[in-house]
Amino acid sequence: MTGIAKTPEPPYYAVIFASQRTEGDSGYGIMADKMVALAAQQKGFLGVESARDEQLGITVSYWESLEAIKAWKENSAHGVAQDKGKTEWYKNFSLRVCRVERHSFFEM
Amino acid sequence: MTGIAKTPEPPYYAVIFASQRTEGDSGYGIMADKMVALAAQQKGFLGVESARDEQLGITVSYWESLEAIKAWKENSAHGVAQDKGKTEWYKNFSLRVCRVERHSFFEM
Repeated sequence: MTGIAKTPEPPYYAVIFASQRTEGDSGYGIMADKMVALAAQQKGFLGVESARDEQLGITVSYWESLEAIKAWKENSAHGVAQDKGKTEWYKNFSLRVCRVERHSFFEM
Repeated sequence: MTGIAKTPEPPYYAVIFASQRTEGDSGYGIMADKMVALAAQQKGFLGVESARDEQLGITVSYWESLEAIKAWKENSAHGVAQDKGKTEWYKNFSLRVCRVERHSFFEM
């Protein structure tokens, strides 16, 4: 999952999810992988990028439309993960919904 | 630098920079810190979030306007870092410029 997402030409949408984890795994790793696999099956999913170090995790998912983001937000299995995130996995997190206006890729 | 950025109410802009590093540090760590400090002095800078693991690095910087992003892109010291990035530090990278439409923060 973890490379640079190959997305189509803008405009499209990005959800920037930044989070700080609680201590320990508590099933987080397995669920995180499962959520990526599930998101990838959603209509309008374009790709995902993710990185985590000791201080912060950032996952950016890319979507065709705001409707696709809404459908993913309301996905019931995702809802279970969202609840566990709030009660167990995260100390805090932020969600930002953005419209990607332009992008460029560089391969050296 | 590495926490969740406390940004004002949308709309504002985000630059999502995803990168894959070459082997070794080659002065990267020091320059990365320097660039964050320098960006923070730019007019219109709102905050930054950054995470890197073995597979990917993601840095999201937040800005008041497209003009502020342009001024940062053209900053001469930043230009030196950009050149080193292309010749030395990165295997590949992507840049996405986005308009943040909405955000939410959760502290548990």
